[in-house]
Amino acid sequence: MLNIGVIGYGYWGPNVARNFHATAGVQLAAVSDISEKRLVLAQNQYPFIKVLKGPMDLIRSTDVDAVAIVTPVFAHYEMAKAALLAGKHVFVEKPFTSTSAQARELIDIAAKKGLKIMVDHTFLFTGAVKKIKEVIDSGELGRLLFYDSVRINLGLFQHDVNVIWDLAPHDLSIMAHLIDKKPVALSAHGSVHFEGKYEDIAYVSIEFEGNGFIAHFHVNWLSPVKIRQTLISGDKKMLVWDDLDPDEKVKIYDRGVDVKSSNGGKDGIHDLLVSYRSGDVHIPKLEGTEALKAEAQYFVECIDKNQEPFNNGQAGLQVVRLLEAADESLKHGGKRITL
Amino acid sequence: MLNIGVIGYGYWGPNVARNFHATAGVQLAAVSDISEKRLVLAQNQYPFIKVLKGPMDLIRSTDVDAVAIVTPVFAHYEMAKAALLAGKHVFVEKPFTSTSAQARELIDIAAKKGLKIMVDHTFLFTGAVKKIKEVIDSGELGRLLFYDSVRINLGLFQHDVNVIWDLAPHDLSIMAHLIDKKPVALSAHGSVHFEGKYEDIAYVSIEFEGNGFIAHFHVNWLSPVKIRQTLISGDKKMLVWDDLDPDEKVKIYDRGVDVKSSNGGKDGIHDLLVSYRSGDVHIPKLEGTEALKAEAQYFVECIDKNQEPFNNGQAGLQVVRLLEAADESLKHGGKRITL
Amino acid sequence: MLNIGVIGYGYWGPNVARNFHATAGVQLAAVSDISEKRLVLAQNQYPFIKVLKGPMDLIRSTDVDAVAIVTPVFAHYEMAKAALLAGKHVFVEKPFTSTSAQARELIDIAAKKGLKIMVDHTFLFTGAVKKIKEVIDSGELGRLLFYDSVRINLGLFQHDVNVIWDLAPHDLSIMAHLIDKKPVALSAHGSVHFEGKYEDIAYVSIEFEGNGFIAHFHVNWLSPVKIRQTLISGDKKMLVWDDLDPDEKVKIYDRGVDVKSSNGGKDGIHDLLVSYRSGDVHIPKLEGTEALKAEAQYFVECIDKNQEPFNNGQAGLQVVRLLEAADESLKHGGKRITL
Amino acid sequence: MLNIGVIGYGYWGPNVARNFHATAGVQLAAVSDISEKRLVLAQNQYPFIKVLKGPMDLIRSTDVDAVAIVTPVFAHYEMAKAALLAGKHVFVEKPFTSTSAQARELIDIAAKKGLKIMVDHTFLFTGAVKKIKEVIDSGELGRLLFYDSVRINLGLFQHDVNVIWDLAPHDLSIMAHLIDKKPVALSAHGSVHFEGKYEDIAYVSIEFEGNGFIAHFHVNWLSPVKIRQTLISGDKKMLVWDDLDPDEKVKIYDRGVDVKSSNGGKDGIHDLLVSYRSGDVHIPKLEGTEALKAEAQYFVECIDKNQEPFNNGQAGLQVVRLLEAADESLKHGGKRITL
Repeated sequence: MLNIGVIGYGYWGPNVARNFHATAGVQLAAVSDISEKRLVLAQNQYPFIKVLKGPMDLIRSTDVDAVAIVTPVFAHYEMAKAALLAGKHVFVEKPFTSTSAQARELIDIAAKKGLKIMVDHTFLFTGAVKKIKEVIDSGELGRLLFYDSVRINLGLFQHDVNVIWDLAPHDLSIMAHLIDKKPVALSAHGSVHFEGKYEDIAYVSIEFEGNGFIAHFHVNWLSPVKIRQTLISGDKKMLVWDDLDPDEKVKIYDRGVDVKSSNGGKDGIHDLLVSYRSGDVHIPKLEGTEALKAEAQYFVECIDKNQEPFNNGQAGLQVVRLLEAADESLKHGGKRITL
Repeated sequence: MLNIGVIGYGYWGPNVARNFHATAGVQLAAVSDISEKRLVLAQNQYPFIKVLKGPMDLIRSTDVDAVAIVTPVFAHYEMAKAALLAGKHVFVEKPFTSTSAQARELIDIAAKKGLKIMVDHTFLFTGAVKKIKEVIDSGELGRLLFYDSVRINLGLFQHDVNVIWDLAPHDLSIMAHLIDKKPVALSAHGSVHFEGKYEDIAYVSIEFEGNGFIAHFHVNWLSPVKIRQTLISGDKKMLVWDDLDPDEKVKIYDRGVDVKSSNGGKDGIHDLLVSYRSGDVHIPKLEGTEALKAEAQYFVECIDKNQEPFNNGQAGLQVVRLLEAADESLKHGGKRITL
Repeated sequence: MLNIGVIGYGYWGPNVARNFHATAGVQLAAVSDISEKRLVLAQNQYPFIKVLKGPMDLIRSTDVDAVAIVTPVFAHYEMAKAALLAGKHVFVEKPFTSTSAQARELIDIAAKKGLKIMVDHTFLFTGAVKKIKEVIDSGELGRLLFYDSVRINLGLFQHDVNVIWDLAPHDLSIMAHLIDKKPVALSAHGSVHFEGKYEDIAYVSIEFEGNGFIAHFHVNWLSPVKIRQTLISGDKKMLVWDDLDPDEKVKIYDRGVDVKSSNGGKDGIHDLLVSYRSGDVHIPKLEGTEALKAEAQYFVECIDKNQEPFNNGQAGLQVVRLLEAADESLKHGGKRITL
Repeated sequence: MLNIGVIGYGYWGPNVARNFHATAGVQLAAVSDISEKRLVLAQNQYPFIKVLKGPMDLIRSTDVDAVAIVTPVFAHYEMAKAALLAGKHVFVEKPFTSTSAQARELIDIAAKKGLKIMVDHTFLFTGAVKKIKEVIDSGELGRLLFYDSVRINLGLFQHDVNVIWDLAPHDLSIMAHLIDKKPVALSAHGSVHFEGKYEDIAYVSIEFEGNGFIAHFHVNWLSPVKIRQTLISGDKKMLVWDDLDPDEKVKIYDRGVDVKSSNGGKDGIHDLLVSYRSGDVHIPKLEGTEALKAEAQYFVECIDKNQEPFNNGQAGLQVVRLLEAADESLKHGGKRITL
């Protein structure tokens, strides 16, 4: 039985608590929050748990084997470090940390202590992403050409981070999970529209090693319409993921590019004829399980079997590095940052 | 009566010819094309016109007062120059020329000769763009925040130009027409996926003078789905133009951003509270006239009244400059090009 | 303070309990259900309430001033009658009763006892229906022409009722609420596809007094796609309500029919020219409150102020009469039933 | 070489002429129209044809082997009869005739004379209907449950017929082509909203022999939105045809109904458990040929090979019988008419 403590009981914390509570092999043992009101709520919902105001009290508590850190990003590093040093496994919200140096340090500590870190990249556990991964891994799409992601709506301005840190961790973690290619450079363009605030709209382009694969991300708090769309094109088939479609989220298009070598032509010049091809569309049925529930189970399983989660500290670091590079690029007018 | 000759009778030429033919005050006088077959077609459709194989014969013909150049872009400069020097007004396909130097030279010649140049930015004459211009000019949207355009589909690879030169002239000319702000820098990211071909996917970001306004363009020949969508957000209202929607192309959202100054808070720090606001949506009825028809009439009118068209050489040059800068940026890994 | 008891804690009962619990001036006092498991759940959620297995115990309990009956329809009459006779106000699920005779009897008892009956036509309290009522009542649509409703999906077969009794009460109660016209006849067509089951698809047509207004309802458990769409056309404007659209549920089209009298023509014959007209579309913002919450508040208010609810027993009876007529028509091959 | 004459050169006639003109083995020989202006147009487009004001002159002309009748429905019978008696094959617009008696007489004459009648049910030659027929004939959908068709928009009022005769021939002919079942009764409900005009909205229900299959049609000139949707559900799979979707017209849903016999339950009562099932969706690629072109070719082929077209007089009669029954039902308040 794994005893888990949840730090932070604001918007997302209750979901994390509820799902760990519902997971076999886990005991929800404690919750901490700086707000008394939230603690009362937690206690009402789970009369059997300990509620604590100070996160460090929870971290140090001997009743707890693992800690779920569901706080704003700036606090992740300090709490995760304390938890690891106290010998606790760590489940931490995305983005993992505020800097890649912090992420690396946490990874090192966990390795030395033989503890697990799991970064809450929840989307990786949705039916949609699982199906897309299956499709890509099967080679069905052929050679991958590009990844284009749009995540925009009239969104709440965050107090402490720009729109990239708020929204792009979803898409960057999904892309890193799906695409088995090495990013080599990144550029970001964005804009601050309200004095004293952070970027509220941004575009991030990522170059990859070899072959022309390119990824692009549009994140935006100022769009009148809500769009959550990802295009992944291969030369054999192409895939569209519309996360807002209630029934038909993932569509696989039997559309592609045919390249024929044409020797000859006038002057015997070798030419490449590029044409396109269009066939049926397939909409696979997706698993319906709640993503966070599957992730909670996976966390327990990884600890039980001493198995490294795919959404481990390293995966979290990868996203943080891209976020850092994006900030660096923004600061220098869209400069290409080598990764 | 204005006698017009059309050079190039391939895909778009017949539309240009048909619309000038249908315009009061214009006489379709001649058509030239390098293909005999196309000339036979033209002659059948308009038995009363002259058909000529050589474009220069058409340009020099005394039966012609104005020339419509509907050829691939590389030929625009030479033909337009010859036509202007021969004293003919010029209607020319977009993009205007292959280089901004060429564009400037043509503008100069026309000025000296007292002739008109009109660049065929057809979209400016659609009901949608006319309505959007009206809305923006009225100030209804408030302070403009961003312009985001997506024009993607499984498109034909062009032999002589990349996807930016193929598709972006539409969007750049529309943006320049709608947005009364000065662009100051541009970056482009793209990729070549097929050896020996040009970029088939690209993203262009444009910075503007003052105030954080930003524009972004996604053009793509490799998308399984067709999207033609433009978002224009202001701080008071926001607009979405979906050119593929048969009935509801332009939607104006009474959504915006409210900024409140909050003096005080702890430590007496001055803070800005940004929240958003959501109201009704309005879908204006759009004019239904064929854009090219309206443009043909406008060409004649500008010549008759000796009035400078808004889609003149200068407007064409502006687009060419942006295209050139995009190529330059692509060549240098997305480098920021000052305009 | 109104003490309320909820009978039935299956699918919908918990929502009813939660909303009455959250309503000022109401005390959730008791819950009954035939399932022990459901009672344990209710007790956990509301530790302060009485839980009772037998509904009659709840009805007779002196701790209760009003009863919410959230059971299958066949039990409504018996329980509502017992509750009224015990002097309790009644909130009852739709459809009100199994027969119009039962409905009339309950209305009579309530009248004699000075008690309120409210039938849970929840949709009447949604932002969409409230806005549509406002639009219709304002006369904006002009003369009403037709009401067309489609409510279909791959739905659960009910054990005790056909698809009309399952789905149409929503639409019939909405229509009766919105349309101030007297229905005069009804025909229903449907089909039973699985032996021993009830109709799983049905179409109901209703004629109204005067002027050609017509209403039609399509309800269906066998549709692969989910549709919840209502069209209400007037001769001045027309309205479409798509309840599945997350943001743009109600659209008002400035489209209509123009009728011009044409005196003359050849032979001096008087003729009517009917043409149509098309203008802007308007999408009003809708209130976002939870419908059931508003309804619970309204129940308390009606009791407090001794005011007759618009969704009273009479409104419930009207729907039951239409359902009865539909069954009668189905039984006789779609025969026209005079109302 | 088949010489064809086209009677009626209004809205649809030019399409018929153009397609026969483009068909191998056919010579467009003559066009007749009561309007001089239309004849001038026809002559300009096809300088080599005879143009005639009187249809009977065309019918009697020895230059013509077959006649395409593209006139309002009231004239079909007279002209088709004259053409058949003159020994000409007949291609005739839908609906075939104004009465089933007329249709029967024409079928008889054609049979005696060894001539072909083809009724222009153009939709049967679209890629969508061809694919749907293939799917249904393969048995993929399982036992067919219902056919539901909606064809509505803000449509032009016809002078001589009601909305059923205007729009339903499309859907009735498609349904008859796809569904190999015998209709046994029909009911129609509709309304006349403008004095002196015909029904502008109508609903038609058709019962079929055995098994509970039911068909329903909604046709409407007063809808603010345009809908062209057909649902065809089977117990194994279900199909949706949205004719307005540019790319994804036909969707096949792997959704169905599972029926399990449950012996037992309490009291040993035999019960049927009906549940539903949901799987992938498949969107087949459709043939892109112009329907009328394929139909014109088929007409020639049927004559050449002396083969009976599937859209022959009998198919036309079937539709006319349903239209007649609909009128009869409308006249009697929705009375069930036995077919």
